[in-house]
Amino acid sequence: MTTEPATTQDQTYDGLFQKALDGLHADGSYRYFAELERRSGHFPKAWHHGANREVTVWCSNDYLGMGQHPDVLGAMHKALDETGAGAGGTRNISGTNHYHVELERELAALHGKESALLFNSGYLSNWVTLGTIAARLPGCVVLSDALNHASMIEGIRHSRADKRIFKHNDLEDLERHLKALPAGTPKIIAFESVYSMEGDIAPIEAICDLADHYGAMTYLDEVHAVGMYGAQGGGVAQEKGLEHRLTVIEGTLGKGFGVVGGYIAASRALCDFVRSFGSGFIFSTALPPLVAAGVLASVKHLRGSSAEREGQRRAVAQLRSKLDEAGIPHITNPSHIVPVMVGDAKLCRQLSDELLNRHGHYLQPINYPTVPRGTERLRLTPGPLHSEKDIEGLVDALSTLWDEHGLPRQPAHPT
Amino acid sequence: MTTEPATTQDQTYDGLFQKALDGLHADGSYRYFAELERRSGHFPKAWHHGANREVTVWCSNDYLGMGQHPDVLGAMHKALDETGAGAGGTRNISGTNHYHVELERELAALHGKESALLFNSGYLSNWVTLGTIAARLPGCVVLSDALNHASMIEGIRHSRADKRIFKHNDLEDLERHLKALPAGTPKIIAFESVYSMEGDIAPIEAICDLADHYGAMTYLDEVHAVGMYGAQGGGVAQEKGLEHRLTVIEGTLGKGFGVVGGYIAASRALCDFVRSFGSGFIFSTALPPLVAAGVLASVKHLRGSSAEREGQRRAVAQLRSKLDEAGIPHITNPSHIVPVMVGDAKLCRQLSDELLNRHGHYLQPINYPTVPRGTERLRLTPGPLHSEKDIEGLVDALSTLWDEHGLPRQPAHPT
Ligand SMILES: Cc1ncc(COP(=O)(O)O)c(C=O)c1O
Ligand SMILES: Cc1ncc(COP(=O)(O)O)c(C=O)c1O
Repeated sequence: MTTEPATTQDQTYDGLFQKALDGLHADGSYRYFAELERRSGHFPKAWHHGANREVTVWCSNDYLGMGQHPDVLGAMHKALDETGAGAGGTRNISGTNHYHVELERELAALHGKESALLFNSGYLSNWVTLGTIAARLPGCVVLSDALNHASMIEGIRHSRADKRIFKHNDLEDLERHLKALPAGTPKIIAFESVYSMEGDIAPIEAICDLADHYGAMTYLDEVHAVGMYGAQGGGVAQEKGLEHRLTVIEGTLGKGFGVVGGYIAASRALCDFVRSFGSGFIFSTALPPLVAAGVLASVKHLRGSSAEREGQRRAVAQLRSKLDEAGIPHITNPSHIVPVMVGDAKLCRQLSDELLNRHGHYLQPINYPTVPRGTERLRLTPGPLHSEKDIEGLVDALSTLWDEHGLPRQPAHPT
Repeated sequence: MTTEPATTQDQTYDGLFQKALDGLHADGSYRYFAELERRSGHFPKAWHHGANREVTVWCSNDYLGMGQHPDVLGAMHKALDETGAGAGGTRNISGTNHYHVELERELAALHGKESALLFNSGYLSNWVTLGTIAARLPGCVVLSDALNHASMIEGIRHSRADKRIFKHNDLEDLERHLKALPAGTPKIIAFESVYSMEGDIAPIEAICDLADHYGAMTYLDEVHAVGMYGAQGGGVAQEKGLEHRLTVIEGTLGKGFGVVGGYIAASRALCDFVRSFGSGFIFSTALPPLVAAGVLASVKHLRGSSAEREGQRRAVAQLRSKLDEAGIPHITNPSHIVPVMVGDAKLCRQLSDELLNRHGHYLQPINYPTVPRGTERLRLTPGPLHSEKDIEGLVDALSTLWDEHGLPRQPAHPT
């Protein structure tokens, strides 16, 4: 079949779309997707179709390599044989399989909550949950951290509820906003535990104290923490013994747990409310049972095993110390995310291109709109599968590029 | 881990959630999810955990049984071995695999379009595409069919663009709205081909004529048509030779194609625009490569084989004629969807419970908010895997229930 010519008005509209795209090209923020073949059993290695070579991946959010874990793969092969390829319907209309039910039970248990609810992505879990609750509680006001993820921002926007943005991780500013609201007003404080681009961690306990004092619900996105923090991988709230103080814990199944999907864990009434009124939950085909089966195996494994978390901490510490030795500037933070600051979109892309083509290290430049202009960066997510040799190779390559481009070195951080 | 007591304010909020849920219980529209085990190789049979028996499924949207097709399962097993469980990142940040790229190429070819763009669900493809285009074309007005799916409605709502709802499939009303808008205003006409709860089909060609005349884009949701209509399964627009006249064709990968996911097919500029500006596309983990691989096999198979489509038409014709013989009232329409009208939420649920528990036929009652109150129905989706014996068994069971409940029979439709 050949592409037939478009109608005249479509050509006109295409002109408008193209103009907007030209703007991205002009300022260097146009995104080219790398075509990448991760090879199960050989993570973090992958085949890069553009560069036509094997590469080491440094920017995956399959943080612990669970995407190649034998338990996960075995569970998925088995469920594929048993249940077929898809769910065959929405959760309500023939699409609920035993694996969905079991996984929701497991996720509730992971967080010490009464209930959990599955979504097709973490994006959807934030968007639907905040969008539904904030829209349907009359007069609800959402207090939203300034660096919240797009999915929360869009959910709040969708709800049309009143929104107050508080300065990132700033308790005083949050309290100022809370104080200004009438006591009887329903309120939600929406924030993240590990912020994905900075790697800093929210003062969860102090935020819960404020929530108690001012009668607010707390909504915590643990997308970059689940699987990785806490004795069973329940996230930062679990690590700090705070899970019971949060109204909603939200997570993804596509990063630490290595597959795809999202969820909330909360009270039975809250989950049932979102299940019953959330359009983006109700009116959409459920996740394939084999995905639920794979995630179930992943969650179960990470509740019982700390080896992956320890391996991640080892790799993060090694990378940081070698970057420090080489004087490559990076943000220090208490998490597993290592942002190497560049501060210019084109340079950021150039460095990543050279790392790829000359050195076989793949990491995507992080440019606007993911981060503010002027804070462009290389974001490194070392994990248990990166060997010391991988880490040395990367830092050597960065060091070479730092020399060639005459970029500023930074004195070693005090340890 | 045990569930710890919630904070006091959470208990207060739970009371509000519970009150809303009580309303659903009171009017019979509370949804109970059936826990169902479809058995690959034995569709449309499944194990029903609640009823604790084997059942025949009549409400799956895996319309053609592609979820158990050997090509699909084989491709998924293979991709699982090769690439692991998940994509490991967003499409931009290490999450684009060769299978995603190939699938987008295949979907563009299927619809005779320059490009295609994958999403994690059909819901997301509608929500993100309409939400992005309508928000970013200054002054854009969306003309939306009154029966459009929730995902389109929410996308339009999210864009905050001006919206005009035209009467369902009503060309005069659509033209009235178009006429009232200034010529230079960017416009999108958003509609579906097969409407999923009625089974009627839009006058696509006439809508395209109006779009040409008034300079509007056309956005066609073919979710309940892809795989099933047209010589290669490209949908109703393909069947009628109209694909080149539509600006955007949107589809799901979770129904006719049997797996999960969604997509748009359109011009290169339009797809690139949504790819570059659509928050719900950019900021979310990509579909697992194995899902893309399974869908790719499904699309390729259905482009070359008409056996599944013919089998579906056979089953639909058989079911309709047997319902007519028995005088069970159903809506006649040109599609594969057979709505048996009940008109009462509680009766609808009772009939479906009795069909399940006494007769082993599973079909979910369709109640508000999926359809307007007073039009509650049993929605049957017979397919190539339903045998004549299955169909006879279902109609006999319905006939028994119609007698027992003293429900009105309807004279046979003229054929
Ligand atoms: C903080 C945060 N929340 C939510 C999401 C969305 O999760 P998912 O990728 O599962 O859609 C992401 C990233 O993708 C994220 O960084
Ligand atoms: C008309 C229509 N569009 C879109 C969707 C959403 O597609 P998906 O199930 O892939 O999210 C549905 C149903 O689920 C639908 O009926």
